[in-house]
Amino acid sequence: MIPVSEARGHLLSLVSQLETEEVPLAEAAGRVLARDVQARRDQPPFTASAMDGYAVNAAEVELHAMFKVIGEAAAGHAFNGRTGAGQAVRIFTGAPVPEGASFVVIQEDVTRSGNLITITDTPGANPNIRPRGGDFTDGQTVSAPRLLAPADIALLAAMNIPSVPVTRRPEVALISTGDELVMPGGTPGPDQIIASNTFGLKAMLEGLGAHARILPIARDTESSLRTAFELAAGADLVVTIGGASVGDHDLVGKVAQDLGMERSFYKVAMRPGKPLMAGRMNGAAMVGLPGNPVSAMVCGHVFLTPMIRTMLGLPPEAQQLQTAALAAPLAENGPREHYMRARVDGGRLSAFDNQDSSLLSILADANALLIRPPKDGARSAGDTVQYLPL
Amino acid sequence: MIPVSEARGHLLSLVSQLETEEVPLAEAAGRVLARDVQARRDQPPFTASAMDGYAVNAAEVELHAMFKVIGEAAAGHAFNGRTGAGQAVRIFTGAPVPEGASFVVIQEDVTRSGNLITITDTPGANPNIRPRGGDFTDGQTVSAPRLLAPADIALLAAMNIPSVPVTRRPEVALISTGDELVMPGGTPGPDQIIASNTFGLKAMLEGLGAHARILPIARDTESSLRTAFELAAGADLVVTIGGASVGDHDLVGKVAQDLGMERSFYKVAMRPGKPLMAGRMNGAAMVGLPGNPVSAMVCGHVFLTPMIRTMLGLPPEAQQLQTAALAAPLAENGPREHYMRARVDGGRLSAFDNQDSSLLSILADANALLIRPPKDGARSAGDTVQYLPL
Repeated sequence: MIPVSEARGHLLSLVSQLETEEVPLAEAAGRVLARDVQARRDQPPFTASAMDGYAVNAAEVELHAMFKVIGEAAAGHAFNGRTGAGQAVRIFTGAPVPEGASFVVIQEDVTRSGNLITITDTPGANPNIRPRGGDFTDGQTVSAPRLLAPADIALLAAMNIPSVPVTRRPEVALISTGDELVMPGGTPGPDQIIASNTFGLKAMLEGLGAHARILPIARDTESSLRTAFELAAGADLVVTIGGASVGDHDLVGKVAQDLGMERSFYKVAMRPGKPLMAGRMNGAAMVGLPGNPVSAMVCGHVFLTPMIRTMLGLPPEAQQLQTAALAAPLAENGPREHYMRARVDGGRLSAFDNQDSSLLSILADANALLIRPPKDGARSAGDTVQYLPL
Repeated sequence: MIPVSEARGHLLSLVSQLETEEVPLAEAAGRVLARDVQARRDQPPFTASAMDGYAVNAAEVELHAMFKVIGEAAAGHAFNGRTGAGQAVRIFTGAPVPEGASFVVIQEDVTRSGNLITITDTPGANPNIRPRGGDFTDGQTVSAPRLLAPADIALLAAMNIPSVPVTRRPEVALISTGDELVMPGGTPGPDQIIASNTFGLKAMLEGLGAHARILPIARDTESSLRTAFELAAGADLVVTIGGASVGDHDLVGKVAQDLGMERSFYKVAMRPGKPLMAGRMNGAAMVGLPGNPVSAMVCGHVFLTPMIRTMLGLPPEAQQLQTAALAAPLAENGPREHYMRARVDGGRLSAFDNQDSSLLSILADANALLIRPPKDGARSAGDTVQYLPL
C-alpha cells in the first residue's frame, strides 16, 4: 500500500495546465485567469469628488466662509474652467474636481442662497477627494493564475478589459461500469441498482470548472468497455468507476491496456477508496475509481479535484485543511488514512457512526470529511482534528 | 436612518418563492429542490455483499472450516440457488447474498483449491453484509428546500429519480445609470469611467443560482431610463445602480414612479451603501443601489443575496456569520453598521486601512466583510469579531 500523498503525486503527474482561451468578461466568473492582464487606464481617471457638495480651495475652508457658485460638475460632465479665490463649483460624487479646487465641502455643511453658499457646519479634515489612480493605475497587473470571483470581474471591467484569457475547461468523460447498473429512470432487474456515481462526480467536477460528459454504462464485457473508451475520445480526463481493482471481474484495466494505456494499479492506504488505476491513453489522463458510491465521491474530492485544478493552472489544493474540536471520542485508526463522513456544527466535529462506503444518505448529510492519519491513536472529545469541508 | 436589518426586511417583503420546474438530474446541481421527493426503491435492493469473498452460513464460520464452492454471485448476476451446510458461493462486492448464507468470508482469509475453500485466517465479527434498505428505503424522503450538492445528486440518482422539481431561476435585469459610464471595451471620454457594477453583480447573482442580464447603460435622461426599464420587462428583479439617492441628479426614482412603482427611499445606517430605493413595478421587485462600486457589491451581498435566496425558496441567510480574532486594533465605529473590507488568514482578521467605497482593487483582495455594529467601541487585537466570508 502507498500513502494517499504518494498516490496523489502519481495522478498529478498525469496532467498539466490546459491551453488558454479568450472569453467575454461577462462569462468569465468562475474561470481561471491564465495570463497576467494589465489595467488599460487609471481609476479614477481624474481627481474625483467622493461626495456631493461644493469644490473649493482648501486654504479657504473655514466655518462661515462664503463662496460664489460659478458652475457645476457632475459625473460624466466636467466643469470646464477653474475655481478662483472665493469661488465654488457645485459638484457631485464621481465628478472631476475642477482646476483650482482641492477640497469638497459636503452639502450638509453648507447653506445655499441663490448663487452664494456659506459654510455653516465645521467641515472635517477629509478633503473628500479621490486622487487620480487611487484605485489602480494604467498598466497595473492582475496576476494569473486566479479563480475569478465577482469582485475580480468588477475590477477587470473597471480596468476596461472586455475579455480575458482563461484556461480552457477540462473535458471529463465519466464511465460507470458493471452489469448491475441501470441509468436513473430505468427499470432495474432484481439484482441491479441505479448508476449514481457518474451523476455525483459530474456535479462535483463541473462545480470546479470542468465540463463532464456522462457516457453510457459499460457492461462487463471487453467490447462494451472498448465502445465506452471510444466514446470518451476528445476528453482530457477519462474516469471509470468500478472494475478497477485486480479482482476476477475487473476487465477495465485489461481493456485499457489493450487500447494502449500504460496503466498502474495503486493500493492506496486509504479508507474508503483503496484501489485506484491510473495512466495515460491517447493523450488523455485516465483514472479508474472504486465502484462503491462513497468511495467514488471521496476519491473525487481527494484525487480528481487536485487533477482538475492542475489542469486549470491552479495550485492542486483548493484550501488548507480546516481544524475543529471533536464532539465525541474516536477509536484508534488502522493503517489507512481514513476520510470519515462527518458534520461540523458550531465549530464541533462529529463523525457519523456508520462509515460503510456504500451509504450515500450519510454522505449527503455530511458537510466534512474528518481526516485520520494512518495509525492515529484514540482521540477524546475536545481534541482538535483536521477536516476537508464538503 | 433605519438599521440594516429593517431595510433587509423591507426588501425581502418585495419577493417570494418562484414557481417550480422539472429539470433532468444531470442538470440539477446547484439548483434548489422545491418539493420533497421520495426514493423509488430500497438501497441496497437486496441483502448485498460488502466485500469480495465467499458467502456461507455464519454458524459454520471458524478457523480451518472447509466449504465446497457451488456457484458464483457477482454484481448484476445473482446466484440462483441456496447455500446448504458446508457450501459456499463465490461472491463479489455488491452482489446479492444467496439464500442460506449470512456471512461473507473475505477472500484474504481463505485458501482455495479447486472447488474447496478453507478458512485459513480468523475472520472478524463483521459479517460483511449490507442489509436490504440499509442506505435508504422505498418512499424515504429528501426534504425541500435543499440546495442540491454533488452528494445529493448521487443520492437522488441512486433513488431512481431521473428528474427533480426545482425552483425556477430568478431572472434579474441589471441597469447601470449615468452619463459618466461606458461599457468595457468602449472608449471613455475624459470625464468618463467604465461600467463595472453590473458585471460584478451578474457574477455574484449567477453564483447564487439566478440568471442575470446586463442591460444597456441608461443615460441621465428620463427617456433613456424609460427605455432601460422597458428592456427589463420579464425580470423578477430589476436592479438599478447609481442615481438612486435623493440628490439633484437622481432621475431613477422619478422615472420609476412615473412607470407605476410605489417606491420607498431608505437611508440605511450602513457603510458603505447608505441610500437604497426599493419597490414593486409591473410585477417585478425593483431595487436601486448606490453607484460606488464597492457600495453596490456590498449591497449585493447584504441585500440582493437574501432576496435571491428567498425567491429560490431558501432561508434568506446563506450561513451564520463567522467569527475570528482581530489581527490589529480598530477605532470605535460611528452610528452606521460598517462592512469593512478585510482578509482572514490563519484564523485572524485584518481590515484594510483604506475603506473608501470606490476601491475595487481592495474589494478584490478582500475575502471577508468585517461587520461592525453601530457605535461599536474601540477593539483591541485579539478581540473576536463577526465577518461575512466573501
